[in-house]
Amino acid sequence: MSGALEAFDTVDLIRAKRDGGELTTAQVDWLIDAFTRGFVADEQMSALAMAIFLNGMSRREIRDLTLAMIASGERMRFDALEKPTADKHSTGGVGDKITLPLAPLVASFGVAVPQLSGRGLGHTGGTLDKLESIPGWRADLSNDEFFAQLESVGSVICAAGSGLAPADKKLYALRDITGTVESIPLIASSIMSKKIAEGTGALVLDVKFGSGAFLKDQARSRELAETMVQLGQDAGVATAALLTNMNVPLGLAIGNANEVRESVEVLAGGGPADVVELTVALAREMLALAGQPEADVEEALRDGRAMDTWRAMITAQGGDPDAALPAPRETHVVTAPRSGVLTKQEALAFGVAAWRLGAGRARKDDPVQHAAGIDLHAKPGDSVREGDPLFTLSSDEPARFARALEVLEGAWAIGDEGDAIEDGGPLIADRIG
Amino acid sequence: MSGALEAFDTVDLIRAKRDGGELTTAQVDWLIDAFTRGFVADEQMSALAMAIFLNGMSRREIRDLTLAMIASGERMRFDALEKPTADKHSTGGVGDKITLPLAPLVASFGVAVPQLSGRGLGHTGGTLDKLESIPGWRADLSNDEFFAQLESVGSVICAAGSGLAPADKKLYALRDITGTVESIPLIASSIMSKKIAEGTGALVLDVKFGSGAFLKDQARSRELAETMVQLGQDAGVATAALLTNMNVPLGLAIGNANEVRESVEVLAGGGPADVVELTVALAREMLALAGQPEADVEEALRDGRAMDTWRAMITAQGGDPDAALPAPRETHVVTAPRSGVLTKQEALAFGVAAWRLGAGRARKDDPVQHAAGIDLHAKPGDSVREGDPLFTLSSDEPARFARALEVLEGAWAIGDEGDAIEDGGPLIADRIG
Repeated sequence: MSGALEAFDTVDLIRAKRDGGELTTAQVDWLIDAFTRGFVADEQMSALAMAIFLNGMSRREIRDLTLAMIASGERMRFDALEKPTADKHSTGGVGDKITLPLAPLVASFGVAVPQLSGRGLGHTGGTLDKLESIPGWRADLSNDEFFAQLESVGSVICAAGSGLAPADKKLYALRDITGTVESIPLIASSIMSKKIAEGTGALVLDVKFGSGAFLKDQARSRELAETMVQLGQDAGVATAALLTNMNVPLGLAIGNANEVRESVEVLAGGGPADVVELTVALAREMLALAGQPEADVEEALRDGRAMDTWRAMITAQGGDPDAALPAPRETHVVTAPRSGVLTKQEALAFGVAAWRLGAGRARKDDPVQHAAGIDLHAKPGDSVREGDPLFTLSSDEPARFARALEVLEGAWAIGDEGDAIEDGGPLIADRIG
Repeated sequence: MSGALEAFDTVDLIRAKRDGGELTTAQVDWLIDAFTRGFVADEQMSALAMAIFLNGMSRREIRDLTLAMIASGERMRFDALEKPTADKHSTGGVGDKITLPLAPLVASFGVAVPQLSGRGLGHTGGTLDKLESIPGWRADLSNDEFFAQLESVGSVICAAGSGLAPADKKLYALRDITGTVESIPLIASSIMSKKIAEGTGALVLDVKFGSGAFLKDQARSRELAETMVQLGQDAGVATAALLTNMNVPLGLAIGNANEVRESVEVLAGGGPADVVELTVALAREMLALAGQPEADVEEALRDGRAMDTWRAMITAQGGDPDAALPAPRETHVVTAPRSGVLTKQEALAFGVAAWRLGAGRARKDDPVQHAAGIDLHAKPGDSVREGDPLFTLSSDEPARFARALEVLEGAWAIGDEGDAIEDGGPLIADRIG
């Protein structure tokens, strides 16, 4: 494309989108190539992102945008691998540690899981932040280490290299500061450009809705899921999505080390029912898309196969699966003010509280506290007695408790037997694809 | 405001505008101050400009934006002057040289006209470019020279200093590259922040509509005019607007030196009827707003008073009013292919053609050819005979003629007596204020 740099006028393309028009495939290709090279200025891309946010994009434009972002960088290939590949992406939620048990569980069936993950920003945690609470574990692997581990262990969870979809990286950084994040065309193309560039053969999307999710509204989440499934299928990736409820935190642990602990419980055949349910459902989807629709996923949790793969995966990346996880310097327990039924546990507030306790970061290069977070002792629908612990806050800095408690004010409630439970309905609302 | 730099979150303000909300006065003040200081990034302002373009602004927000841009820089004061002041702004058109005869005409009645002008970009010419075709004339005056000339001659046409409304300058540069120019809130606040900061007591706006105008649509031009008149009046400036027709070039000269020549004809009591009509109408408005509703404007053109002020004004700025103006190296005459009536002379095409001949610039620092342009020999409604010259193209570079003729293809037409004349109606469509 190097000769095409002056093929279009950037302002004309912005105007077309501004006035509700559609960009052609050639225009989108040129735009993303020119943006990657710095020929289209960040200011221009920011204005265009706002025009896309407000005027939308056709499915065809979204596909063109996704393909152009893939073409801006490298594309991984797993042809040399003698296994099928399956990958999973979650749009992010509070207490969402599913990747940790899921990757080794699926890999224990002989399907390679090349899980390139990110760090957390804001109230949703990052998979790498959680795993980094395991002493010795490292997120950065060389290309050779990555492929060798996929071959030997089957699952890898590591940091994405900078070579995949650099246009998306550049565009995301702009969207973050220009109020243009929550746009379905821009979210869908951002996620799918990375996932398709990663070269997986099968992909399951966990698209969340509800207070703790990126998109609160179920109808919009469904639209996002449908858009992404279509993009994956068009690119030859076997893709499906589950539409899942994020009105209540997932599991009982929100943080980093405590989420690793809960993941290990699931791998040991125990763990909270909702975490098990979602892990099993996503594993079934991945295995079915990878050619094993009959796989007995629950058996692999019971008989220790998934745990064995977990231990091998952590060890291969320098971690000690038996090491003690970091413990917090301070804890603060909130107890039930009266007996009754827990009717409410609002995901966003608990996510923000864990973030304020130090489990997440406000800026890209901030460190996280691995032992900070929240342990829940009851879930909506559970009966509690006056004085029972409801949840425990953990942090290395006692000064953080007040601001965490502030955001939890009104985020949970105790009612009477028979009162409505504000949990937003079943965990898995629908399957798409 | 220096202590208020962290008072708001930029992304929150962008989101509010994005979602159709209104910004408060404090938010607008903070935003423009922070943008001027570089605390709000250009990327953020670009996205916000697009959100404003698409979602609009309330009258109150437009006023706040205008006042905040004025507050970003210096404000001129004419208190020391022993005369009233009156200023004029045109939204720009093809062949619009009205400032040249208008400023000395109004000044000849003892009203000071401090006319800070710009250079042309694109198909509408710039007042300073036109005047610079006069040998010796200079656009850059010191503050002292400016005030001394206002006192002695009464009219000054010169370049605006960089201290007025720097926020507008910064924002306009972004709008230019991000497809966010044609937005009424942004146009109105840009023009009025500069005009109010210039400190004039009275202001007349020539708001154009039609093919050669910035806003083609008359209804949108009216909205712009009403918005600006309100802004001026709110700021204590006696403001009125004329809504004028720019479907046909103004006068017979489009360029630089030829427009000076036509202006001098008007000052000598002659000149094309439309140029005289608009000059006289705008002069009456300015004089009425400055307290002289009964001034006999036409008499000042006939008796040479306006011409005397013109000569004094040009001389004071180093120019020789008697010097020969630059002549083009090459000319090309287009003649009537048949006898009949000229029914069409489309302003935009003639403006672009003059620009392509070298009269205007494509980039900010390009030079202009002072002798380049177009002289019209007939106007819509005029009878012509086969072989009569219709217009003459002038340029220093013969290679430019072909591209100018290309854009003029279909921009004019000869019909029969009784055919409709495509001139868009009367020159002055309405008065506002």
